[in-house]
Amino acid sequence: MGVVVQNIDRADPSVIEGLGRAGVATVHEAQGRKGCLASHMRPIYTGARIAGSAVTISAPPGDNWMLHVAIEQLREGDILVLAPTSPCDAGYFGDLLATSARARGALGLVIEAGVRDIRELTEMGFPVWSRAISAQGTVKETLGSVNVPVVCGGQAIAPGDVIVADDDGVCVVSRAEASEVLARAEAREAAEEEKRRRLAAGELGLDIYDMRGRLAEKGLRYV
Amino acid sequence: MGVVVQNIDRADPSVIEGLGRAGVATVHEAQGRKGCLASHMRPIYTGARIAGSAVTISAPPGDNWMLHVAIEQLREGDILVLAPTSPCDAGYFGDLLATSARARGALGLVIEAGVRDIRELTEMGFPVWSRAISAQGTVKETLGSVNVPVVCGGQAIAPGDVIVADDDGVCVVSRAEASEVLARAEAREAAEEEKRRRLAAGELGLDIYDMRGRLAEKGLRYV
Amino acid sequence: MGVVVQNIDRADPSVIEGLGRAGVATVHEAQGRKGCLASHMRPIYTGARIAGSAVTISAPPGDNWMLHVAIEQLREGDILVLAPTSPCDAGYFGDLLATSARARGALGLVIEAGVRDIRELTEMGFPVWSRAISAQGTVKETLGSVNVPVVCGGQAIAPGDVIVADDDGVCVVSRAEASEVLARAEAREAAEEEKRRRLAAGELGLDIYDMRGRLAEKGLRYV
Amino acid sequence: MGVVVQNIDRADPSVIEGLGRAGVATVHEAQGRKGCLASHMRPIYTGARIAGSAVTISAPPGDNWMLHVAIEQLREGDILVLAPTSPCDAGYFGDLLATSARARGALGLVIEAGVRDIRELTEMGFPVWSRAISAQGTVKETLGSVNVPVVCGGQAIAPGDVIVADDDGVCVVSRAEASEVLARAEAREAAEEEKRRRLAAGELGLDIYDMRGRLAEKGLRYV
Amino acid sequence: MGVVVQNIDRADPSVIEGLGRAGVATVHEAQGRKGCLASHMRPIYTGARIAGSAVTISAPPGDNWMLHVAIEQLREGDILVLAPTSPCDAGYFGDLLATSARARGALGLVIEAGVRDIRELTEMGFPVWSRAISAQGTVKETLGSVNVPVVCGGQAIAPGDVIVADDDGVCVVSRAEASEVLARAEAREAAEEEKRRRLAAGELGLDIYDMRGRLAEKGLRYV
Amino acid sequence: MGVVVQNIDRADPSVIEGLGRAGVATVHEAQGRKGCLASHMRPIYTGARIAGSAVTISAPPGDNWMLHVAIEQLREGDILVLAPTSPCDAGYFGDLLATSARARGALGLVIEAGVRDIRELTEMGFPVWSRAISAQGTVKETLGSVNVPVVCGGQAIAPGDVIVADDDGVCVVSRAEASEVLARAEAREAAEEEKRRRLAAGELGLDIYDMRGRLAEKGLRYV
Repeated sequence: MGVVVQNIDRADPSVIEGLGRAGVATVHEAQGRKGCLASHMRPIYTGARIAGSAVTISAPPGDNWMLHVAIEQLREGDILVLAPTSPCDAGYFGDLLATSARARGALGLVIEAGVRDIRELTEMGFPVWSRAISAQGTVKETLGSVNVPVVCGGQAIAPGDVIVADDDGVCVVSRAEASEVLARAEAREAAEEEKRRRLAAGELGLDIYDMRGRLAEKGLRYV
Repeated sequence: MGVVVQNIDRADPSVIEGLGRAGVATVHEAQGRKGCLASHMRPIYTGARIAGSAVTISAPPGDNWMLHVAIEQLREGDILVLAPTSPCDAGYFGDLLATSARARGALGLVIEAGVRDIRELTEMGFPVWSRAISAQGTVKETLGSVNVPVVCGGQAIAPGDVIVADDDGVCVVSRAEASEVLARAEAREAAEEEKRRRLAAGELGLDIYDMRGRLAEKGLRYV
Repeated sequence: MGVVVQNIDRADPSVIEGLGRAGVATVHEAQGRKGCLASHMRPIYTGARIAGSAVTISAPPGDNWMLHVAIEQLREGDILVLAPTSPCDAGYFGDLLATSARARGALGLVIEAGVRDIRELTEMGFPVWSRAISAQGTVKETLGSVNVPVVCGGQAIAPGDVIVADDDGVCVVSRAEASEVLARAEAREAAEEEKRRRLAAGELGLDIYDMRGRLAEKGLRYV
Repeated sequence: MGVVVQNIDRADPSVIEGLGRAGVATVHEAQGRKGCLASHMRPIYTGARIAGSAVTISAPPGDNWMLHVAIEQLREGDILVLAPTSPCDAGYFGDLLATSARARGALGLVIEAGVRDIRELTEMGFPVWSRAISAQGTVKETLGSVNVPVVCGGQAIAPGDVIVADDDGVCVVSRAEASEVLARAEAREAAEEEKRRRLAAGELGLDIYDMRGRLAEKGLRYV
Repeated sequence: MGVVVQNIDRADPSVIEGLGRAGVATVHEAQGRKGCLASHMRPIYTGARIAGSAVTISAPPGDNWMLHVAIEQLREGDILVLAPTSPCDAGYFGDLLATSARARGALGLVIEAGVRDIRELTEMGFPVWSRAISAQGTVKETLGSVNVPVVCGGQAIAPGDVIVADDDGVCVVSRAEASEVLARAEAREAAEEEKRRRLAAGELGLDIYDMRGRLAEKGLRYV
Repeated sequence: MGVVVQNIDRADPSVIEGLGRAGVATVHEAQGRKGCLASHMRPIYTGARIAGSAVTISAPPGDNWMLHVAIEQLREGDILVLAPTSPCDAGYFGDLLATSARARGALGLVIEAGVRDIRELTEMGFPVWSRAISAQGTVKETLGSVNVPVVCGGQAIAPGDVIVADDDGVCVVSRAEASEVLARAEAREAAEEEKRRRLAAGELGLDIYDMRGRLAEKGLRYV
């Protein structure tokens, strides 16, 4: 505890942008169905879709001091990721911190705790994915760390990993795999377009994906 | 496991339509305060109100294979109802399956698990009531069954039962009772109109429903 | 059980109005980070912000009889606060009761249970903060009490306390402290304006709040 | 609501006894991995293992009146199964009711709600599987029904179905399938004995169940 | 925050002792079915039954400093009651604090948070009712208060209130009502003895409590 | 997915043994209050205390195939650690697998899912820390991985990390830090012995830890 890692590596901006375009569901499939944060991590308003580099924060329960420390470490296009050291729903973050984080380049926040000033954050268009909405205030007494590995929403997140977040939730892509995942995501999207067209026309997935034989082999009975 | 029942009976379309107009709260009262699915079954967007015949799916945790099988069994006006065989939040359903289900007649989905592609489903106007929103993908390895009785949201649902769903949640009406429930729901609505007018004018429920005597008899004290 | 306290003291209307303008997060900080109801108490729609005097209801699980009794006790600007005597998600309140409560002066409802007729309540603009949305109906068989102290959302609430509620949740201010809390809330808001401007310009909280020395003293290391 | 079905069919006592000997895990597997109640249904003390015929109760939240009605319907070897009509943790059942239920033949209780007098029930050796332990009392004001189909712990249970309960939780076997399930359970147990011996000797499941080929075929890589 | 009330009134020791003998379920009924803490407040081991005067602690999340302050305020026969200012599961209390608390007169702890050193506490026979068992440590940085009113397990508890705790959970009795509640509890126990004897002999509650007429009047049908 | 890492490094056996002797609470403090798994990870029976090297398993929901694969990778003194790829309570593990795991050297299991055959596991003395007890069976259809990094109970666990588990829950110590943590744990235990003696004699933590000055400085008021 009490460490700030100042220079972290980030993925290529064009790769990050591409992952954001693909969105959480596609990216998560493209990397082998891994990386989704737990389903209790919900957006405070619908319609946002962002991707950026994780600036991570490990913070004590009910203590948001490290957010101020982390904001200094932000670069354009980063996403703050905060995990408390024990479960906590308090409101670590509101419109003042959002104003500051945005001024320093942040695109949004992913937090395994609470957030407040929902009306103002919505008006600002500063998106947050959180476990709770809570006005409960915090203190500034105990150190945590910035840009260390954390577990947030049940996923291990390293500083500089790519965070993709939209109405489906949040997905993390390791920095090292980001460009490979993007390539697979784009291939997946291309393939889906054709399938969507055929399904819309009334063709069945049973036929398009050629499932009938395997279903029969497993013993599916029609009665 | 591994059974698909192909021909199920459905309620009369005009009865189904009437139940949909009445809505979940009225229908549930009209059948004796029963049939409401648990309150964790929430719509992915507000404003939808549908009613249709249940095409039921019993699926293994994390395996959405049977959705493809079920879609073939749909008729115009049906609603898919999926219950996993053990608790699971994974995202069984997204915009491709919705495209296919709609093409085959489905009005929506009720699922005791997760759903994804929320933005696309909202744009399509394909409503879903689910326990979770999750991009977590599923596999296609293990058989389940289609059009067998299931328990979803704490309610027993038989194939062909009428599902009513709106912003209040989801209610099931057994096929056999549907027309009788509709009659009571319509009577209830007519009665409510007059009460609403009197309450809006400032009259008290204590007087309209003549409660004062019974309250006094039970011992209510005003101090 | 079975008591209705008819004449309760309320805070000064201008104080209540001021607290409503300040909002939940500011009010809660202004009274020393206390009074927030638990984060599961969520608004049924976003955008409402109200403040009023608590008319409290202690009700049995699944029994909404006392709501009718409480509505008679309302005055203009009150907020109904209902806590069940054991945990219950049933839908105690819907559009008929809202019509009646509004006609008698209520601004909204805070309920540690369920609420229904969400579409109608939203159209009416009658805000509710609740633990659940549920169409499950209730009975009228057992007495509770009105205008007695209750615990709702983990906070002790006395009749006549000021309730502030917005998108961040709900906060209670004791009647005796209301004007003092308002004074502190207004001072706080004035101070925030200047900070927001500086943060928006890119200054850091680390500098504005002069945190660097204390962080170093606690042992924060930059690597 | 408000119906008591007085004469229900029960399974053969020797079949019930056999299912009890096999236990929850074996019985559940023997009927195709179905019938387990949700994992929040826990025994109030460890070590009990019972099987019996379900006498079912559908009760309002916080109202235990129907337990008295149900006790009259008990026969030797029955198990009470109570499901509230909306979620409730109140303590419906304690040592007086247990004394009465036992005197009329009950072996235990399965309840999707709370239970109290844990010390006395443990001393009596009257086992209960419940969702909660709670001293919160209930009223006797509203009718429910006895020996109607209920959903308890996420499973549909009909009166006369066989309930098996032990430290692993609770499983329901439909009356019609009970003897067939017993046959499969006994076959399963015989097969397990040999496997247990081989596994204890250090042989691997990979070899005993001949899994290596299929794992390789699916693409498992050893590195 | 930051206040220690040093001299609190306590109930009469013989009354406290009597309430402890009666136990949680009886005491809670005797005071009108109120005062039970939420069912998630569970004992760390079974078999303890205590009653004592509440020495209350309001503590920040993850900060157990005030426990040391509170221990100085203990008198023989007291029970520590800790509520965090926002939800927290961290382990505030272990065997060292228990050793200290016992040396100063404490009979046990009721805590809406976590506790650790379960093995040692069990060996010492120092009972705890808590929301969680967790080894997660806490800090000593932020003030809370001692002997102020708190909400714990959903119940308002004032310093000096009587706490009764056993295998059924925890109940609070206000100091002012303690002797009256004891009188009713003892009357209740006397009445139960006779009922238990009759129920054990096979008489039905339906007859002992003369329920048949009222059930028929409400419309209960036997089929 | 679908990878088995066969040779992993483990910590020194004497270090592991020492950490086990110290127990979860001490070890967790000794490494800076980190490493505790979430408090829902509970032992299936009390009294066990183990420490060993993690053999990790990432498994699909409801599929326990990889347990068989992992058992082959066990060495004497290992502990199995299983995390499903999406939340699942099904019973992945029972007495047959325990028999096999023990025969190959396992000391116990830590599983973010369900376990069954509780009676048999207790009789065998094979300890398990799990999120649920559930008889719900699993399939063997989909690959997972063995000895890859996992997140279990909210903590990142690498193969070969040291797992310490007792009645307080589970703690992970990274292999690289194990001996250093042991040294600090032993120092901590030595210091505690003296404190325990003084606290038992009635001295206050306020004095032993010299807290009075700092409390006064922070503004604590005695009234």
